Amino acid sequence: MAIQEISTLPKNGVYTEKTAASLHLLDQGLQAVEKLMYDVVASDVTVLRDASRHILQAGGKRIRPRMVLLSYLACGGRDIERVIPVASAVELVHTASVVHDDINDHGIVRRGRPSVNSIWGRTFALLTGDFLFTKVYELMAPFGDLNILLADATIALVEGETLQASAVKDNNFTRQVYYDIIARKTAALFKSGAMLGAKLANAPASYVEVLGNYGFNLGLAFQIIDDVLDLTGNTEQLGKTAGIDLEQGRGFAAVYEGGQDLMESIKRKVLKGDVLQEAREQAQQLIDMAVIGLNILPETPERDDLIDLSHLVIDRTH
Amino acid sequence: MAIQEISTLPKNGVYTEKTAASLHLLDQGLQAVEKLMYDVVASDVTVLRDASRHILQAGGKRIRPRMVLLSYLACGGRDIERVIPVASAVELVHTASVVHDDINDHGIVRRGRPSVNSIWGRTFALLTGDFLFTKVYELMAPFGDLNILLADATIALVEGETLQASAVKDNNFTRQVYYDIIARKTAALFKSGAMLGAKLANAPASYVEVLGNYGFNLGLAFQIIDDVLDLTGNTEQLGKTAGIDLEQGRGFAAVYEGGQDLMESIKRKVLKGDVLQEAREQAQQLIDMAVIGLNILPETPERDDLIDLSHLVIDRTH
Repeated sequence: MAIQEISTLPKNGVYTEKTAASLHLLDQGLQAVEKLMYDVVASDVTVLRDASRHILQAGGKRIRPRMVLLSYLACGGRDIERVIPVASAVELVHTASVVHDDINDHGIVRRGRPSVNSIWGRTFALLTGDFLFTKVYELMAPFGDLNILLADATIALVEGETLQASAVKDNNFTRQVYYDIIARKTAALFKSGAMLGAKLANAPASYVEVLGNYGFNLGLAFQIIDDVLDLTGNTEQLGKTAGIDLEQGRGFAAVYEGGQDLMESIKRKVLKGDVLQEAREQAQQLIDMAVIGLNILPETPERDDLIDLSHLVIDRTH
Repeated sequence: MAIQEISTLPKNGVYTEKTAASLHLLDQGLQAVEKLMYDVVASDVTVLRDASRHILQAGGKRIRPRMVLLSYLACGGRDIERVIPVASAVELVHTASVVHDDINDHGIVRRGRPSVNSIWGRTFALLTGDFLFTKVYELMAPFGDLNILLADATIALVEGETLQASAVKDNNFTRQVYYDIIARKTAALFKSGAMLGAKLANAPASYVEVLGNYGFNLGLAFQIIDDVLDLTGNTEQLGKTAGIDLEQGRGFAAVYEGGQDLMESIKRKVLKGDVLQEAREQAQQLIDMAVIGLNILPETPERDDLIDLSHLVIDRTH
């Protein structure tokens, strides 16, 4: 599985001591994130606990906590335990939004499993999403000023989701609207995750800035690919209800300016696979620009891992 | 209007200088809370801004921010500006939950106006509730450890709402279940509001404790009256869709142990007004117990105002 490879394969096929140690920290961190998320949703209100664990145990790419952890490590942080609650909180923001999304989109499959709303119904799904948000708040409570960063990203996420629902309703999915939507609903959280990792490592402001910029662009790239895969994939392959975005015209806007009149030619292009190729090129351009900034970071395996994260984002098929 | 009277009427009909000054601070605080809530939901995503302001401008009793402010003043705090963001955050937690409640309950009237979901639809109402939660997070970000108190109350609130939906679904509305529900969904937030006010005034732990206890019991009393008014009132009088709780059996459980078999005798009692009277007596007992603890606080007008808050809660007709 491509995701695992990033954290377990050495550079050039050879493990150096340093690489092995840092990979060990990343893996340790990712495992601790899973455990913390599982533990923190414990509740005697069994439906909240069960529905939360259902969506968490379905997995997901965990690209956001990976971003937080790698950003921390790339800035020289080594006390990985310190980052776990923050990396978990960032993933739980995403998880909460996914649960609420599936209510609004009537999604019935998520991460290869039935969605929370399809098992527990809309009312309990709404409350489970709320519950996950409250757990973000609980996890972040001890982190002082860092809360401002994550609060801003969470606000942007809800605004982005709302702009998207408005654009669908008003049939107003231009490329500009599309970029505004994905900047807020996806890129802002990636950005804040990268900045949080850097700040927890007490990195200088310049590191925080280039990592935030990288996270932002990686987030844009991630969402573009996500939307185009939604167009080209099927439900089984994607592990979530496919075609939702097709109805909403989102994937089209990722690549094309214009409305329904282009539908036929776009469908032909989708069938030929051109759309996915174009989106990957566009995503790669975003990454290339942002990667240059990372040059100011110390030359470490984790800096390379951060760059490798972009391959995971761009080359994925689901 | 009964709510205003509490902050504008003097004790014994005579304003002392001290009373006038402290009432001035309370009124100043409540006005600043309104302004901050209005301002903080500003967004270029107009539907979020408009829907948020719609529910905020409908008013509401503002009993939670009043609790925070009075608790602060009763502990000797005088820098009222310091409490405004926290009092606003506590009210926004409640407001967010109200918006999500109305989705789940299909409520069409709230605070005498159409509910958010009835104007903007379920999707935008869900996102507006999420947005209000993120604004709580934003407002509280600068308050360090105090976040733990509010996070816990917010978790309890969502758990209480969930227990309630479960009890309705499973037709399992015993008195014990009812108390567990209202303790979490209402009393926990009142309690944390009172404790937050005290902590912001740097009050000793004993003050924080008795105020928390008072807030908790006031919250229980508030919810019992709320549920019984829902039984006995009509939509116009209550300013929200009446009878929702009747269907769910909640108001019954506030007063009676037992199920559907008691329906007829209860309906007769409701018509005679006995239920409301019994609930008021029960609520008064809760308050009487908690008021004793307040004796350790300095004898101030604000301590009396806190006790007067219970009359507002118990004697209200909507």
